[in-house]
Amino acid sequence: MKSIVCHGPHDLRVEEAKVPQMGSEDVLIAVKAGGICGSDLHYYHDGGFGAVKIQHPMVLGHEVSGQVVEVGEAVFNVSVGDLVAVNPSVPCGCCEYCKKAMYNHCLDMRFYGSAMRVPHIHGAFSQQLVAKASQCFAFKAGTQASDAAFCEPFSVALHAVGRIGSLIGKRILVTGAGPIGALVVVAAKLHGALEVVATDIVEEALERVQVLGADKVFNVGQGGNPLAAYGENKGYFDAVVECSGSQAAILSALEVVRPKGRIVQLALGGDVTIPQNAIVTKEVELCGSFRFYEDFAWAVELIGSGRVDLSPLLTQTFSLENVVDAFELASDRKRAMKVQIEF
Amino acid sequence: MKSIVCHGPHDLRVEEAKVPQMGSEDVLIAVKAGGICGSDLHYYHDGGFGAVKIQHPMVLGHEVSGQVVEVGEAVFNVSVGDLVAVNPSVPCGCCEYCKKAMYNHCLDMRFYGSAMRVPHIHGAFSQQLVAKASQCFAFKAGTQASDAAFCEPFSVALHAVGRIGSLIGKRILVTGAGPIGALVVVAAKLHGALEVVATDIVEEALERVQVLGADKVFNVGQGGNPLAAYGENKGYFDAVVECSGSQAAILSALEVVRPKGRIVQLALGGDVTIPQNAIVTKEVELCGSFRFYEDFAWAVELIGSGRVDLSPLLTQTFSLENVVDAFELASDRKRAMKVQIEF
Amino acid sequence: MKSIVCHGPHDLRVEEAKVPQMGSEDVLIAVKAGGICGSDLHYYHDGGFGAVKIQHPMVLGHEVSGQVVEVGEAVFNVSVGDLVAVNPSVPCGCCEYCKKAMYNHCLDMRFYGSAMRVPHIHGAFSQQLVAKASQCFAFKAGTQASDAAFCEPFSVALHAVGRIGSLIGKRILVTGAGPIGALVVVAAKLHGALEVVATDIVEEALERVQVLGADKVFNVGQGGNPLAAYGENKGYFDAVVECSGSQAAILSALEVVRPKGRIVQLALGGDVTIPQNAIVTKEVELCGSFRFYEDFAWAVELIGSGRVDLSPLLTQTFSLENVVDAFELASDRKRAMKVQIEF
Amino acid sequence: MKSIVCHGPHDLRVEEAKVPQMGSEDVLIAVKAGGICGSDLHYYHDGGFGAVKIQHPMVLGHEVSGQVVEVGEAVFNVSVGDLVAVNPSVPCGCCEYCKKAMYNHCLDMRFYGSAMRVPHIHGAFSQQLVAKASQCFAFKAGTQASDAAFCEPFSVALHAVGRIGSLIGKRILVTGAGPIGALVVVAAKLHGALEVVATDIVEEALERVQVLGADKVFNVGQGGNPLAAYGENKGYFDAVVECSGSQAAILSALEVVRPKGRIVQLALGGDVTIPQNAIVTKEVELCGSFRFYEDFAWAVELIGSGRVDLSPLLTQTFSLENVVDAFELASDRKRAMKVQIEF
Repeated sequence: MKSIVCHGPHDLRVEEAKVPQMGSEDVLIAVKAGGICGSDLHYYHDGGFGAVKIQHPMVLGHEVSGQVVEVGEAVFNVSVGDLVAVNPSVPCGCCEYCKKAMYNHCLDMRFYGSAMRVPHIHGAFSQQLVAKASQCFAFKAGTQASDAAFCEPFSVALHAVGRIGSLIGKRILVTGAGPIGALVVVAAKLHGALEVVATDIVEEALERVQVLGADKVFNVGQGGNPLAAYGENKGYFDAVVECSGSQAAILSALEVVRPKGRIVQLALGGDVTIPQNAIVTKEVELCGSFRFYEDFAWAVELIGSGRVDLSPLLTQTFSLENVVDAFELASDRKRAMKVQIEF
Repeated sequence: MKSIVCHGPHDLRVEEAKVPQMGSEDVLIAVKAGGICGSDLHYYHDGGFGAVKIQHPMVLGHEVSGQVVEVGEAVFNVSVGDLVAVNPSVPCGCCEYCKKAMYNHCLDMRFYGSAMRVPHIHGAFSQQLVAKASQCFAFKAGTQASDAAFCEPFSVALHAVGRIGSLIGKRILVTGAGPIGALVVVAAKLHGALEVVATDIVEEALERVQVLGADKVFNVGQGGNPLAAYGENKGYFDAVVECSGSQAAILSALEVVRPKGRIVQLALGGDVTIPQNAIVTKEVELCGSFRFYEDFAWAVELIGSGRVDLSPLLTQTFSLENVVDAFELASDRKRAMKVQIEF
Repeated sequence: MKSIVCHGPHDLRVEEAKVPQMGSEDVLIAVKAGGICGSDLHYYHDGGFGAVKIQHPMVLGHEVSGQVVEVGEAVFNVSVGDLVAVNPSVPCGCCEYCKKAMYNHCLDMRFYGSAMRVPHIHGAFSQQLVAKASQCFAFKAGTQASDAAFCEPFSVALHAVGRIGSLIGKRILVTGAGPIGALVVVAAKLHGALEVVATDIVEEALERVQVLGADKVFNVGQGGNPLAAYGENKGYFDAVVECSGSQAAILSALEVVRPKGRIVQLALGGDVTIPQNAIVTKEVELCGSFRFYEDFAWAVELIGSGRVDLSPLLTQTFSLENVVDAFELASDRKRAMKVQIEF
Repeated sequence: MKSIVCHGPHDLRVEEAKVPQMGSEDVLIAVKAGGICGSDLHYYHDGGFGAVKIQHPMVLGHEVSGQVVEVGEAVFNVSVGDLVAVNPSVPCGCCEYCKKAMYNHCLDMRFYGSAMRVPHIHGAFSQQLVAKASQCFAFKAGTQASDAAFCEPFSVALHAVGRIGSLIGKRILVTGAGPIGALVVVAAKLHGALEVVATDIVEEALERVQVLGADKVFNVGQGGNPLAAYGENKGYFDAVVECSGSQAAILSALEVVRPKGRIVQLALGGDVTIPQNAIVTKEVELCGSFRFYEDFAWAVELIGSGRVDLSPLLTQTFSLENVVDAFELASDRKRAMKVQIEF
C-alpha cells in the first residue's frame, strides 16, 4: 500500500509502506478520503511550526474516512463494510488528565501526523490504516466518504463553539474564514446563535462562508476598520471565535466583544501583544480551545444524519498521485477552502 | 472643611472646600479614615495613568469610612451617629449594562477620585462628604473606622476571587503581594482555597502576606524561576490572580496554571506580550476583574462581623496635614503596605 | 372597540370597551392576531387555577401582535404602520429582583391577563391596545401577524431551553406535546440538540411535533412504559423539559435522565410526589422555568428572520365573534394545537 | 482479628475473621478509629433501608482511619507506620461514567459496608483491613486517628457544598443538624458563606452546630413556623442543603429559598410530595448530592492541616467489645452526635 510521507519542507513523497499488524481490538480500514489540514500544510511548507519540526520522515494526515476491511475479534462497534470516520487522537487513559476526563490534555497523547513527540506519530494518509476500534465511528449507508472526512475538523469547530457555552440569544464574531473558521460559522448557526458575522482578508473565503450561513461578512484587509461601529457602547458581540492567529484579529476582538464576553482563541499562533487594560476593564474572558474529544462522536452524528451539509466547503479533490498539486492548491486561500485526497 | 486635592504630579494640596448641598436621599458624613490606593499614587506621581490624566484639580480618595452627621428625609438605611463605609461607585442605573445588573460596566459610571470623565468625579478625601444613602453601609457599634475603610479594596479582592468560581479544592497563586494581592490572599483563604501561594519581588511584602495567611511565598525578583516545579505536568494551580500588572507574572502564570485553569487579571497594566499557543493548547481562561459591585455589601458584612481581620495590612496612619508624607511612604513597598489618613 | 372579557367559568363575552389614554412613552396598537394560551383556557373553564381565581371581569389574552396606529412623542423604537409583537410582562424596574436583572421574578409584576394581582391586569384581547413602547418589538415588512403572535409562547420555550445551558451534544426529552411542548421541541432543535424525543398521550399532538422536528415520539397513554429502554444504565437523556404537569411524566423523567442531568419543569401543576432517593443518588437537577424576559426579543428576531417556521402549530383561526367556539376548540387537544383569534 | 458483623436487625456480632490476602498494589492497615454512620444504624435497626436489605452477614463501617502495617511492592503513596484515612468507594474505572470522571455514578461501584450489591461489599469495621493503595491517604505525624476518621463524612459534606457552586456572598440554610448537617455547616463556613442558619427538632443537636459555627439555629419541632420571616419577598437564602430527609424540611426550603436558588438534597428519603408550582414560579433548582469522589483528598488535606477542627462532633468513643452500646447510643440524637469505635 501507499502512504503520503513528508521528508521535510517541500519534500512530500508517495511511498510504498507495509500494512501494520492488527490486534484484537483493532480495525483495518481502506482509507477513502483525506482532508488536508493547516498543520499538514505547515509540515509541507516549513517542516513544522514553532519549535515543533519533523525529525524523521512522517506520514501526514488526520482527517480521514474509510471503509472497514477487517475487525479484530474483540471489536463490536463497527463491522466489515462500514464507512467510518477515524478519530486521530489516542489519549493514554491513565494520566491525571485522562482520569479527570480531560482527554485532550492527556500527558501522553498520540495524535496522528504530529511531530510533537519523537519518534513522531504517523498520520492517516495511507491506503490502509489500522486504528483502535474506539477511534472508529460508523455511518449509516449512503453517507459520502468525502462528508465523513469532515468529522475531524468539524469536531474542532464544535469544541470551540462549546467553549462559549449556550448560544441562545448570542451574537458571534468569527475572525478568520478559512476551513476552521467556516466550520465554526456552521457550528454556531447550528447551535442557534442569533447572528454570526465573519471576517477575513480574502474575498473568496468570505463569499464561501456566506454560502455556509454567515449573516454578514467583512473584509478586514482593505484598510479602515469595518468593525468600528461594533465597538460602540463597549461592544456588540457576546463572543468571538478567533480563527486567524493574527494579532490584528485579537485586538479587534477586544474592541467589539461586550463586557464579560468570551474570546475563544482557536487558531494557534506565536506571540501576540494585547492591552491588559482592555482585558481588565471589560472583564473579557480570553480562553483557548484545543482539539476536541467527545465532540467527535457528535460530529459523526450531525454529519451522518444530514443535519449539516459541509459539502460546500470541499473545493477540490485530488488523486493520491497528485498529492503535491493538492498541497499546493490547498495553500492558495483564494482558490481553495478544503482540499481532499482520494485514496 | 478641608480636602486633599491633586493639582498635578507631586502637587498635592490640603485645601479649604465647601460642604456640598444635601438632597433628601443623601447622607452627610464626617470622614474618619481614608486608605491611599494605587490609583491615588498614580495621580500623585504621574498625574494619572495611561491615557487618563487629570485635566483640572481633583480631590483624591475612594477608600473611606466615616460617621453619619445628618441624613436626608428619605434615608432609612443609616442613622446619625453610625459608622459607615462609602461605596465610591455610582452607576447611572439606566444604561443597557445597568439594566442587565452589570453595574461595574455602566456606560455612565461616576467613580470617586477618577479622571476618566471630564470634568472629573471628585474623591472622598474631604473632612465632610455628601453621598447617596445607597452608597452608605452601616457597621454595628464597636467597629474601628480604620477597618471600615478597607471595605473598598476588599470588595475589589472579593470580586476577583468571585471570578474564579467555587474555591472548593482549589490551589491558587497570587502574583503580586501589594495591598490588593494581600487582600486577594485573605479572600481566597476565607473562601476555602486549599492552598494559596503568593509571589512578589519585595521581601517585606511577602512577609506580610504570610502573616495574612499565604501558605507559601516566593520572591521572584532574585533570578532563577522559583516556580519552575509548579510547571511540571502542564501546571499545578487551578487559578492565578494576577495582581502585579507585570508581563513576567502573566508569562509565569501561563506556565504554572493547569489546563482549563483561570488566570484572573486584576492589576491594570499596559501592553503585554503573551504566547498565543499557551492559551490555546492548555485551554487557559484569561479573564479580567474590574472593580466590584454587590461585593461591597459583603465586604462590609465580613469586616463588620470580624470574620476577617485586615488590620495587619495597615502599616501606618497619618494626619491630614501630613498627607504628602503619607503619599511618599505609601509609595515605598518595603516600608508600607496600606497607609491611611485620619481626617 | 371590542374586548374579550371573562366573567367567570364558561362566561366569556365580547364587550364594548374604551380605548385607554396614551402617555408619551406609549404605543397604540390595532391588535391583529391573538393566540389562546393554556392559562386563558383555565380562566375560561375554571375561572382560574389553584388559588388564583378571577375576582372581577378580566380581559384575557397575552399572545398578541398588531399594527402600530399611533406613538407617543417619546417613542423611538417603533413607528406607525409597523407590525409589532407585544411583550405582556411589565416588571416594576425597582424591586430587588429587577435590580438584579431577574425581571421575571419582579415583586410587583404586571402581566397581561393574569388574576394573580387584585385588581387584575387586563389582557390584550382587545381591538385596540395601549402598551409601553418598551413592550413593543417591530418586525420587518412581510411578516405575518399570525407568526408574530407566536413570540410570547416561543419566548417561554426559549427560556426553558435556556435553563438547560448549552445544547451541544445533548439528547433531550420533552414530556407533553401541547403548544408549549411543541415550541420547546422547535427551540431545542434550533439550538442544536443532538436528538429530541417527545411524549404525549394524544396521538394527534405527537404527529404534529414530529412535523415540527421531533426525532422520535412516544404515546405514553397506552399502557406499558415505552421509555423503559431509556432508563438502562442510569439513563439516556441529558435533559428533560417537562411540559405536561403530570406526575407520571416527572417520575418517568427521573428514570430516563442521566446522572447530573437536568429536568426543567415548565408546566405548572399541583402537588407531585417524587422519590427523594432518585434525586439524590442520580444527582438530578430539577429546576423550574418561569415565563421569560430577554428571550422575547430573541423570539422576535428568530421568527422575524424566518429562522423558525412556527406556522404548522397554528391549527385554526377564528373571528372575534366566534371566540367561544375558538376557546372550545382550543380545549380539544385531538383537533387543535394553537388556535388564534383575528381582531 | 475481629470484625463487626451485622446478621440482621439488632443482631450485631463481634466475630473472628481472617485477614484477607494482599496484592502488589494493596495496603494492610491496622484500623484505629471507625465512625458510626446513619446507614450503619439503618442496617443495625432495620436490616437496611428501602429496598436495600442485607441478604447475608455483612461487616459494617466505612468511616475509618488506621495505621499502615504493610504495603505491596507497587505502593508508593503511603508507607509503613503512616496514619491513613481510607476512601470506602472503589469505582470500576471502565464504565461510561468512570470514563467521564463521574466516579460516584459508577455502574459497578464497590462501596464498603453496602448491601446494594449481592454479595454485599464488606465494610471496614475490622481490626485489620486490606485496601487498594489508591484508597489510602496519609496524614502528617501528629494527626489523631479520631480526626482522620472524619474524612469520609466530611467528604460527603464538601461534595454537597460543592453542588452549590461559589459561596461568596451567599446565605445558606442547613435543614437537619445531625452529623452530616453539622459537617455541612462547617464546610459552608469554611468556604466563606456569609451566613449559615441551621434547623433541627432536637435542641441538643442545635446547640452543637452552634459551637461548630452556625450563625443562627431554629428548633422547627415546637409548632409554628420559626422560618416564616425568611419567606418574605420570595425568600432569603441563596441555597439550602437538606440534611434531614423530611418532607417538612423540603417544603420549608421551597418557601425560604430565593428565586433561582438551589436546594441541595443530601439526605436520602422516601417519597416526598412537593408543590410543582413553587419549583416553577421561583425557578428553584432542586438537585441531589450523592457521596463524593475527589472531595476525599480535600477532606484529608483540610483535616490534616488543622484548617477545620471536627473534634467537637465526636461525642463518645467505645471499645470494640461495647459495639452494641455504641450503636444504641449513636441512635439517640439527644445524647450523641458522632460515636466512634476504637479497634
